[in-house]
Amino acid sequence: MKLVSFRADGGTRLGVAVGDRVVDVAATYAANFPGDADTLQTMRAFLSGGAAAQEAAQQVHALAIESPDKATTTDAALAAPVPDPPKLLCLAGNYAEHIREGGGIALEKEQTTPRVFMKPPSTTIVGPGDAIVIPRNAGWIDWEAELAIVMGRRGRFIDASDALSYVAGYTIVNDVSERQFVIDKDREPRDGDSWFDWLNGKWFDTFAPQGPCLVTSDEIRDPDSLRIALRVNGASKQDSSTAHMVFTCAELIEWVSRNVTLEPGDIISTGTPSGVGKARGEHLNPGDTVEVEIEGIGVLSNPVTREE
Amino acid sequence: MKLVSFRADGGTRLGVAVGDRVVDVAATYAANFPGDADTLQTMRAFLSGGAAAQEAAQQVHALAIESPDKATTTDAALAAPVPDPPKLLCLAGNYAEHIREGGGIALEKEQTTPRVFMKPPSTTIVGPGDAIVIPRNAGWIDWEAELAIVMGRRGRFIDASDALSYVAGYTIVNDVSERQFVIDKDREPRDGDSWFDWLNGKWFDTFAPQGPCLVTSDEIRDPDSLRIALRVNGASKQDSSTAHMVFTCAELIEWVSRNVTLEPGDIISTGTPSGVGKARGEHLNPGDTVEVEIEGIGVLSNPVTREE
Repeated sequence: MKLVSFRADGGTRLGVAVGDRVVDVAATYAANFPGDADTLQTMRAFLSGGAAAQEAAQQVHALAIESPDKATTTDAALAAPVPDPPKLLCLAGNYAEHIREGGGIALEKEQTTPRVFMKPPSTTIVGPGDAIVIPRNAGWIDWEAELAIVMGRRGRFIDASDALSYVAGYTIVNDVSERQFVIDKDREPRDGDSWFDWLNGKWFDTFAPQGPCLVTSDEIRDPDSLRIALRVNGASKQDSSTAHMVFTCAELIEWVSRNVTLEPGDIISTGTPSGVGKARGEHLNPGDTVEVEIEGIGVLSNPVTREE
Repeated sequence: MKLVSFRADGGTRLGVAVGDRVVDVAATYAANFPGDADTLQTMRAFLSGGAAAQEAAQQVHALAIESPDKATTTDAALAAPVPDPPKLLCLAGNYAEHIREGGGIALEKEQTTPRVFMKPPSTTIVGPGDAIVIPRNAGWIDWEAELAIVMGRRGRFIDASDALSYVAGYTIVNDVSERQFVIDKDREPRDGDSWFDWLNGKWFDTFAPQGPCLVTSDEIRDPDSLRIALRVNGASKQDSSTAHMVFTCAELIEWVSRNVTLEPGDIISTGTPSGVGKARGEHLNPGDTVEVEIEGIGVLSNPVTREE
């Protein structure tokens, strides 16, 4: 299933894409099946609802295909499929070619460990078609096409061999980044300045476009062999495969769950391949359109504007 | 007012402390006043509810003092007052003596900038009396007494001169930290390893005890002159004043809002004074009790256990 969140009443509701229609999952379930539709109201409730919620959503999906007239559809605009993850965890440097294009040394996997940071979900996440806003106080804004894992079960010390069973599905995140952010040019240098500048440059509002849908994990058998591409105004900038990730999705889940308990709705964005703007001497400008495409998921498209 | 969150129905509800009683704000409002009590159900709803919610809570508070029999009280256990902040932002090194005890150089304020990182709120925040759990895969666990700002209004590019008007109130956070966390001892060294180790060492489950209450900002005229102390098993470890912060609360709000939009419920934990365990060659052990006390707020007490 391709699950979406659509905008309604100042919040979002859970939808499922059937062809080019979006079906309101809770409304369709309530109209056609006995039982409680509470866990089908929002994506977050669905992700916390476990097997029962998944089965109910599948019933709605099947009904909407077999008996289209029984499905309640909507033409409301889409939001980010997971608009409110408890944690938005992102990988720094998980493709060897991207590490090298940034001037770093890509060590063999056995010699290194994943590097994880967080973005503030509530202010960075925007949906399909929403603007990436260049901040008033920053200028060199870059793109990063990434496959994002959406967790479906709670876990700590998850073993890689079992890790994909904890995944609800996959979506796309554009890990938008300010590459030259310097917090204060006049300060005296201290150890770690460049690190805090780098981290804070990841946090600006709208810097985590996400979407267009969450593809449930039953439809993506191998998340580690998907074509991933990014275009700016139609011109190819990134074109790779998740097969080139240093750490696989399962290994990332194992590693992250050693440090934090993973919860339903948590997102792990798995890092970006080579071809970012910084390595090309390019950055995003107002008026640009950025498209990220991942095989089996779709295209996430966002225009670029500037903060007033 | 001293506002609290108390546990109810698997979640939390908003309470107000009146003497040694906790009054259920929404229930008391609904029983005694006309109008909608929706914004009084939870702390998060209250913080997003603006002036109308504040006025309604004050009516409940006044009624509970004047006519105790009209107030609905509860003896449910307290949770963290703000159990689900959108962002949990923490300051690294905001007291000169703490920077020096860690071996760093404390520059003059004009030569430096605040350093901000985040903790994952949903898995680190625990309430008064909840256990700080030493992770199975980590050992050197330290304390950090901190004054925490709770935002009451949304803002970006907030000016320091007006910043305190954006504050709903103040609480206590213990920024529990793993001081010697090394992600993988066998890896080849890379630039930034120590930084990612340090950051991930802040993220373990239960590492952000918070409470016991949120004191509304009208009762704390000057957050930058409060005594702040920490005791382990009754022995004094930290004893200072927020007057010794490098950047004041207002300056921190100004600075953080240059990088992210601040929202109602966001927490900015303002850094810790000197006296942490690392500088003493001490760390927390199972069976310990850690108390943080801040003038005008109260005492946050948490036992220490070990993950099974």
